Amino acid sequence: MPIMDMLWSGWGDPERAERLPDSVTDLLRELLGVHAEPAQPVKLAEIELPAARPIPLADIVGEEHVRTDDETRIRHARGKSTPDLLRIRAGDARSAPDAVVLPGSHDEVAQVLARCAEHRIAVVPFGGGTSVVGGLTPEADAFAGVVALDLRRLDRLVGVDTVSRTATLQPGLRAPRAEELLNAQGYTLGHFPQSFEWASIGGFAAARSSGQASAGYGRFDEMVVALTLATPRGTIETGRSPRSAAGPDLRQLVLGSEGAFGVITEVTVRIRPLPETRAYEGWLFPSLSEGVTAMRALAQDGPLPTVLRLSDETETMIGLARPGELGQSSGGPGGCLAICGYDGTAAEVAERRAKVRAVLESLGGEYQGEEPGESWARGRYTAPYLRDALLDAGVLAETLETAGFWSNLSRLYDAVRLTLSHQLSSSVVMCHVSHLYPAGASLYFTVVTAQGEEPLESWGRAKAAVNDAIIEAGGTITHHHGVGVDHRDWYAREAGPLGIEALRAVKDRLDPEGIMNPGVLIPPVGGSA
Amino acid sequence: MPIMDMLWSGWGDPERAERLPDSVTDLLRELLGVHAEPAQPVKLAEIELPAARPIPLADIVGEEHVRTDDETRIRHARGKSTPDLLRIRAGDARSAPDAVVLPGSHDEVAQVLARCAEHRIAVVPFGGGTSVVGGLTPEADAFAGVVALDLRRLDRLVGVDTVSRTATLQPGLRAPRAEELLNAQGYTLGHFPQSFEWASIGGFAAARSSGQASAGYGRFDEMVVALTLATPRGTIETGRSPRSAAGPDLRQLVLGSEGAFGVITEVTVRIRPLPETRAYEGWLFPSLSEGVTAMRALAQDGPLPTVLRLSDETETMIGLARPGELGQSSGGPGGCLAICGYDGTAAEVAERRAKVRAVLESLGGEYQGEEPGESWARGRYTAPYLRDALLDAGVLAETLETAGFWSNLSRLYDAVRLTLSHQLSSSVVMCHVSHLYPAGASLYFTVVTAQGEEPLESWGRAKAAVNDAIIEAGGTITHHHGVGVDHRDWYAREAGPLGIEALRAVKDRLDPEGIMNPGVLIPPVGGSA
Repeated sequence: MPIMDMLWSGWGDPERAERLPDSVTDLLRELLGVHAEPAQPVKLAEIELPAARPIPLADIVGEEHVRTDDETRIRHARGKSTPDLLRIRAGDARSAPDAVVLPGSHDEVAQVLARCAEHRIAVVPFGGGTSVVGGLTPEADAFAGVVALDLRRLDRLVGVDTVSRTATLQPGLRAPRAEELLNAQGYTLGHFPQSFEWASIGGFAAARSSGQASAGYGRFDEMVVALTLATPRGTIETGRSPRSAAGPDLRQLVLGSEGAFGVITEVTVRIRPLPETRAYEGWLFPSLSEGVTAMRALAQDGPLPTVLRLSDETETMIGLARPGELGQSSGGPGGCLAICGYDGTAAEVAERRAKVRAVLESLGGEYQGEEPGESWARGRYTAPYLRDALLDAGVLAETLETAGFWSNLSRLYDAVRLTLSHQLSSSVVMCHVSHLYPAGASLYFTVVTAQGEEPLESWGRAKAAVNDAIIEAGGTITHHHGVGVDHRDWYAREAGPLGIEALRAVKDRLDPEGIMNPGVLIPPVGGSA
Repeated sequence: MPIMDMLWSGWGDPERAERLPDSVTDLLRELLGVHAEPAQPVKLAEIELPAARPIPLADIVGEEHVRTDDETRIRHARGKSTPDLLRIRAGDARSAPDAVVLPGSHDEVAQVLARCAEHRIAVVPFGGGTSVVGGLTPEADAFAGVVALDLRRLDRLVGVDTVSRTATLQPGLRAPRAEELLNAQGYTLGHFPQSFEWASIGGFAAARSSGQASAGYGRFDEMVVALTLATPRGTIETGRSPRSAAGPDLRQLVLGSEGAFGVITEVTVRIRPLPETRAYEGWLFPSLSEGVTAMRALAQDGPLPTVLRLSDETETMIGLARPGELGQSSGGPGGCLAICGYDGTAAEVAERRAKVRAVLESLGGEYQGEEPGESWARGRYTAPYLRDALLDAGVLAETLETAGFWSNLSRLYDAVRLTLSHQLSSSVVMCHVSHLYPAGASLYFTVVTAQGEEPLESWGRAKAAVNDAIIEAGGTITHHHGVGVDHRDWYAREAGPLGIEALRAVKDRLDPEGIMNPGVLIPPVGGSA
């Protein structure tokens, strides 16, 4: 396969692993009360897997595209949440599929689904494998087998419509390769989530991804103009027009369906001309509330930068993306750092920057120059590497997120922080406001705490309490991580019993055997929700 | 009731009926070969209705809110398409409901639906009554009765969230009153479809309305951030955040559901500050293709005016909104007229106008001053009145619309025009491009032809052929009129069998007795699609 596999026990390219300076490690361990010995992952070869059950798909995809070796199964056992990593590092790969199957076309996907329905084999669509919400670990005990449907062979840019400025992409295309192919024709998708280096187009659509440049380019679900979905009962094709009044928007039923209805086999998205210039800059606000007021002004009255995010006091102080400085006394000015980024022609960027500057200065912002922005941009994909280094040092780091209306944002912020401080005796909680809309925004939290004796249990309790707090404070259980198995029961509270029934009705019709990612998104009947 | 009823046999306020000058009438009749005598509607009192079946809802809504008098039933018999008018003008009110019921709250709506399900009584949600696609004439022969659920008593502005810039509105609120209430607080919804003067908030949501200022304010479905839906099986509440990754977007399942799943009882929408200034202007392009290129440039690279539309050569020549000039020799410059409108602060409008001017001039546009724009704005709601005058004169006028991607737009345009010219021996067909998106736009056609001997049949054949042509040319069957009964079978081709099955599954779950607007949107099982 031309696609590189991620580090099985953590994030990304093993060559790019981040090392924390010993001074930082020592300081963190002291601050968070970490007393345990540093903990390394088990060896891959030591992991024991349950025997693979027979998966009769070779006649459809070809013998060489049905993989049952231990390493491939382990690499498809779970996603990349911190609990996923804690489990896999401890050698727990019980969730590994019986086989990893690599279809080469929409028709092969369709045939695989029909066959699996016939044999009651659960199917887990697998793109970049970057889920942090249990999207790759279905509840499949009742099934005769589990297949991870790895879409990496569906990796083509099918076509570019330069008049309509759209591109049709296959789901297994990884984001960097999609950008490369579009850049070569003078276009960009403009979708840069933190998982960018590994995530896939199909995953972006299935889980409603939102990227760091969403202020300028929109969320992924807003970019999609057409979709093809293979289900066990046939194919749905949507999208004859950017917008339509022809009934409920079926695209919006497929987007966010997380493999529970079928497999997205083609996505047509809006594309933009490759920007001539990219510029980043930093702004400092005296307080979070003043910063939020300024963000809201830009979101409601414009102009919007392409990238826009505001760190709270803690995140500003810790500057997570610059691990080298982590051990130094902050010495900085305090306050809340905002990052603004601008894509466009030189003239357009200059004009927009000047207008943003006028707004932010009038609302108490102090310009910090380009360095903080450039520094953020350089480090934007490194946090998950850092997490691995922290795990090695006995420190647990995890992120969680929500979104709400502007008038409810400080209540949501307080609810999450208060709950975490009650749940975790010694922890650092930081947050940024990002993904701004006229009516609201998302809150993205990073938590760092000691792993303790039973990290899965203690973090599980804290996370459950935070989920409760988010739902009770009126927020959505996820702004862009998705639902998976982990958020499912809170999602059921958010959507309400009848909302879930409506979605279950769709699933029952498209996937009557219930083989598609069972337990992901939609609670089983009579299940925990 | 404080809300005025529309002219039962036509459009709008009878006091504002448009009279065509005799010279225009004569010319049109000659041009289109109209030989019949001018045809006036029957008298209201002469219309015979089927006996009203008993509707047991008085205990829920109160005796005075169950209306069974002939006039009220006739006024709720159908919508306002030209076939609707031809039928009602001829005294055919067989589609009248047995009763018109006026619930006063969400809870009353919920109780009415439960009761009707119990008694197998079909329910037709009724807002402004402006449907032009058969949204008010369900296929209800198999039911024990039909109720029109007139939502006019649910007419409150529930609240304004000035921080999030959203407003919560009840569905029976008519658009002008909603604007008035919001304007009083310094805000506007910015939603001005041609039906503005009569249409309701609930109808906008249920049928995915798009207004004439959609370039600036977005479509109605894009404005909605939260919805409440009463169904025969309970209530769905959606919208905790402007955007979310929590599963498929249930709002987008309710939007466009046209009463087939339930009744929308509350809508929360984005609002904007009332603009300081509104300006309109005209631009002339040598040809439609040059005009479309210019529209596309604004839609893709900006800046976008608030209103943006481009008439083809025929519509430009005829200037439909100025009936007084209809009989005059055009004497104009030919070409294609575009209208640009701008809402905003004076400074912002001036800047945007200058930028738009630079783009349009560089692409062959010739500035026509403000007069054509002001004239369009003055006449923007008069076309439906004009239709009544034409019907009186034996002339049939109707509109139809579609949308597609930019690269497919000229194919769609040609397909519709060619089909109409084949179908109608003598007719005038005009079109404008409006509702622009980065990836595509809508095409809005107006057809004027002789009524002939059997106008319902001949227009019905032409319309069916156009629908076929739109689907075959890859367009959507409707950009903003909706599906109703009239577009349903073509909608089924657009959504595909499995797409329709998914929606039918939702309907079966929320409305197991099938009482909600039966035959609207979703084809009956084994039905015509």
